[in-house]
Amino acid sequence: MRFSALFIPTLRDDPSDAEIASHRLMVRAGMIRRVAAGIYNYLPLGWRAVQKVERVVREEMANAGAQEIRMPAAQPAELWQETGRWEQYGKELLRFRDRHQREFCLGPTHEEVITDLVRDEVRSYKELPLNLFQIQTKFRDEIRPRFGLMRGREFIMKDGYSFDADVPSAEATYETMRAAYHRIFSRLGFTYRAVEADSGQIGGNLSHEFMVLTDSGEDEVVFCNNCDYAANAEKAVASVAAPEPVDTPEMITVDTPALHTVEEVAGHLNIAPERLIKTLIFALPEHNGKPGRLVAALVRGDRTLNEVKLANVLGVTELTLATDEQILTGTGGPVGFSGPVGLQGIQRVIDPMVAALTDAVTGANAADQHHQHVLPGRDFEVAKTADITTAEAGDGCVRCEGGSLQVQRGTEVGHIFMLGDKYSAGMEATFLDQNGKKKPFVMGCYGIGISRIVAASAEQHHDDKGLCWPLPVAPFEVALLALNMKSEPLKGAAESLYKQLIRAGIDVLYDDRPLRVGAKITDGELLGTPFLVMLGERGLAEGVCEIRERVTGETTEVPLEDAVTVLIAKIRESPHG
Amino acid sequence: MRFSALFIPTLRDDPSDAEIASHRLMVRAGMIRRVAAGIYNYLPLGWRAVQKVERVVREEMANAGAQEIRMPAAQPAELWQETGRWEQYGKELLRFRDRHQREFCLGPTHEEVITDLVRDEVRSYKELPLNLFQIQTKFRDEIRPRFGLMRGREFIMKDGYSFDADVPSAEATYETMRAAYHRIFSRLGFTYRAVEADSGQIGGNLSHEFMVLTDSGEDEVVFCNNCDYAANAEKAVASVAAPEPVDTPEMITVDTPALHTVEEVAGHLNIAPERLIKTLIFALPEHNGKPGRLVAALVRGDRTLNEVKLANVLGVTELTLATDEQILTGTGGPVGFSGPVGLQGIQRVIDPMVAALTDAVTGANAADQHHQHVLPGRDFEVAKTADITTAEAGDGCVRCEGGSLQVQRGTEVGHIFMLGDKYSAGMEATFLDQNGKKKPFVMGCYGIGISRIVAASAEQHHDDKGLCWPLPVAPFEVALLALNMKSEPLKGAAESLYKQLIRAGIDVLYDDRPLRVGAKITDGELLGTPFLVMLGERGLAEGVCEIRERVTGETTEVPLEDAVTVLIAKIRESPHG
Repeated sequence: MRFSALFIPTLRDDPSDAEIASHRLMVRAGMIRRVAAGIYNYLPLGWRAVQKVERVVREEMANAGAQEIRMPAAQPAELWQETGRWEQYGKELLRFRDRHQREFCLGPTHEEVITDLVRDEVRSYKELPLNLFQIQTKFRDEIRPRFGLMRGREFIMKDGYSFDADVPSAEATYETMRAAYHRIFSRLGFTYRAVEADSGQIGGNLSHEFMVLTDSGEDEVVFCNNCDYAANAEKAVASVAAPEPVDTPEMITVDTPALHTVEEVAGHLNIAPERLIKTLIFALPEHNGKPGRLVAALVRGDRTLNEVKLANVLGVTELTLATDEQILTGTGGPVGFSGPVGLQGIQRVIDPMVAALTDAVTGANAADQHHQHVLPGRDFEVAKTADITTAEAGDGCVRCEGGSLQVQRGTEVGHIFMLGDKYSAGMEATFLDQNGKKKPFVMGCYGIGISRIVAASAEQHHDDKGLCWPLPVAPFEVALLALNMKSEPLKGAAESLYKQLIRAGIDVLYDDRPLRVGAKITDGELLGTPFLVMLGERGLAEGVCEIRERVTGETTEVPLEDAVTVLIAKIRESPHG
Repeated sequence: MRFSALFIPTLRDDPSDAEIASHRLMVRAGMIRRVAAGIYNYLPLGWRAVQKVERVVREEMANAGAQEIRMPAAQPAELWQETGRWEQYGKELLRFRDRHQREFCLGPTHEEVITDLVRDEVRSYKELPLNLFQIQTKFRDEIRPRFGLMRGREFIMKDGYSFDADVPSAEATYETMRAAYHRIFSRLGFTYRAVEADSGQIGGNLSHEFMVLTDSGEDEVVFCNNCDYAANAEKAVASVAAPEPVDTPEMITVDTPALHTVEEVAGHLNIAPERLIKTLIFALPEHNGKPGRLVAALVRGDRTLNEVKLANVLGVTELTLATDEQILTGTGGPVGFSGPVGLQGIQRVIDPMVAALTDAVTGANAADQHHQHVLPGRDFEVAKTADITTAEAGDGCVRCEGGSLQVQRGTEVGHIFMLGDKYSAGMEATFLDQNGKKKPFVMGCYGIGISRIVAASAEQHHDDKGLCWPLPVAPFEVALLALNMKSEPLKGAAESLYKQLIRAGIDVLYDDRPLRVGAKITDGELLGTPFLVMLGERGLAEGVCEIRERVTGETTEVPLEDAVTVLIAKIRESPHG
């Protein structure tokens, strides 16, 4: 297409509200424009990138046996009331009333609608498995939308749902989808990790997140440098050596006046922080008729408590630290001096690293006092332990010998869940099995953030001059720059090359604007088309053009008559072409 | 694709809520399922039909120089407040508040968003014309959604907007779009009319509706049997001969006791109804500071007043008939006896057919009395006239000699408007012209109901056995029916033919289900695939299959080895293939 006929409002300056590169560059390259917080217009270039991603996703979904459908954005409240999510889902769920005062929501996800559809239409195991997906604009009323398309309120998702007759079949479907997701993110040219994920609000017990590694990512990804173990920070487990075991003398109480932090206490007692036991007290609110209560979480002094792990152990969704007063009443001592020894009536969750300690130090539940020479099991009870510690870079891998964990920031672009019968049982969505017995469907669900993928790709593929799209996401494969539109011979040669490229089936953006060389090259680099073909007067005189690869900057002089062939070869050879 | 692997829940019985054929058959063919009033799931077959229509629309939009973008569904209230439509638009506009209590709507149309985008980005006439479109799910809270996809609340639209520097250029763009619309509806295989339309709420002064002719249509289309004049009922004008002029004797008052209707009065006085003048009194509410007032509309006794025409003449959006009391107070006589003679203080709108009458009869503004021998212009003033009569079948065409008007029901599938500067002036969206002068953009807007097109196509293409899709809309081009899946040789031959068809690039639905012949043919006809290939044991023994054209029922026996070639030829020769 001709640049002159396209709506590509490029900008020289960074937009003031853009905090990360992808947002900044997509606005500058005229791909998106803000309408309201987290709500964007996709201009022609931005929309082309979205459509390219959609194409890859559709192909791989079809290859994996999933069928495309389209469910409505507006969903009746009754369906969400059946699963209880109408009440559970927070303010991110946009609820509204229609003109007849009936309640609806703009669904950020479609488990209820699809389960309702399938329970009405599928009667027999013979009609299973069934794997349905859609690509749709969703709305989620994020409290803090930011980073352009990365965390918007209105965004484009692929969401898929599978229905199987039993768990083995559902697991096979899950594996098929996992493989399809790997193909999608590989084809799109991402550096990513499939991580074991906390299955969170949607429920179920098997879940993987596909995380694109980017410095600006909002999540942390933990992965092994030796094997393919990867998990998000809420789920990652680590193999951490215990300090050398020693004989533990009899426990004593020592004065630690006004010493609160691990460092202060360890320094005062001249011990390693890893021998200190941190005791954090949480207050759980009243829940389902159970009265409110205090919980003590014990982790090693040199490690960080992972609140998501602790919440999962306790079976709650939220955790609040106890107040000073609650701690005083519950433990007998002030905040900063809690410990497990002699602690009565408070549930204890003990990390295995704590259980493995010898000759430890812990708060004495009294002001300015700690216990020294504490031996877990001897001086306080260790009934059972649970991993509640955050894995850290350099920790050992639990899956392989000698592997060491790394931690990097990442952006979630896909998420797959094994839902089991969470929705089908709740909504009485059943089929008749081979013995004529009613059974709930075994479900899975599979999401991909289409618009976020475009932003994540920009985040991973750019340099100081602009975007560097990988071929499968690039709005155009080739940009043809006619460097002097005032020269009729040059214009003629450029037009001819443009037509040849189109005939060869290449997606080409022809910069036919009457601008100076510098402006054209600046825009060409900003837009990030993988191959730039530059045709200038000097080259034309010699019958050559220059082909520059956007990522490497590598430039080759190619005879004009070979340009199309060379470009076809370069596109084919491109790692993601 | 394989029928056995597809989600096509066909039904034997008509759904109880379906009033028209397209709705009934699309549900029965497993294409759509209702989620809430006017809100549907598109199942795989329904979605394929939508995507096929989208493809045709995208191609023709690109050919016409329009660029695809995507604007958000959620639109901030501020933009709609700028044009005043936030208040003007009725309950069909779904308004909501986000978590921060900011007001938004789910836009049923995007004039405000696009005008805001273009005013921010386009500075100079050099960047014009600009023609942008999107394909998007829209929400319009219809008071009475019905007819399946025909009048839904959530639906898929193509909406486009053009920006030109002056009226001649905008008119050229309008013509380009009009031609593109003709190509689209022709390619899709519709019998349709492009009608001159009332430009209604959106404003502007040049407008065409593209109406598919269907008995179930909600609108009336008036068109000439001789030339290409066509208009919707709200706009259609007719050439109607006046009754033979005669000398009009002096006006007299006659008793017409308890005679109210045109027929009663005409019969009593032994005159033709066409010589009677009907006087309808409307009450206009207070508006923009103007006090409320009465208006008398005069039409010929044998014709029907067109309220839309009258409302346009009066410059109002709604009309209410005056109450009995208002009529008595305003005219001095009771309802049913109003007339223009001696009427004081009431604005009169006189149809030209009334002005052309001689020796007419009209109410005398007194109970049970009419005036006879009335001559317009002599007995009451005829300052100016306005066409306020509905055109009828058999009326003469105003555009050609000898043409006669026909009236048919139709469904609007496309609508194009010349908006002029209605939005750009209101929103101060300006550019600098060649002389460096600020000017508002001259705009046009262009809609197509994508999902409605699928329903309208089903409405125009079905018979008593089911759907009869034209090729460009059909979910599949060819249905291959293996009539006995228990026969291994037959199954083998069918599989082989299926693979050949796929290799030939044909969109084929292979019915590989282990069902009886009858059930397969019934479903095959219900689904309406244009070409049915039936392979049975007898045929296989003779090395032939049967190819049946769904519309005509014409069946040909074709040697198996020629089947692919024959189908390719049939698809190519198909009028809309």
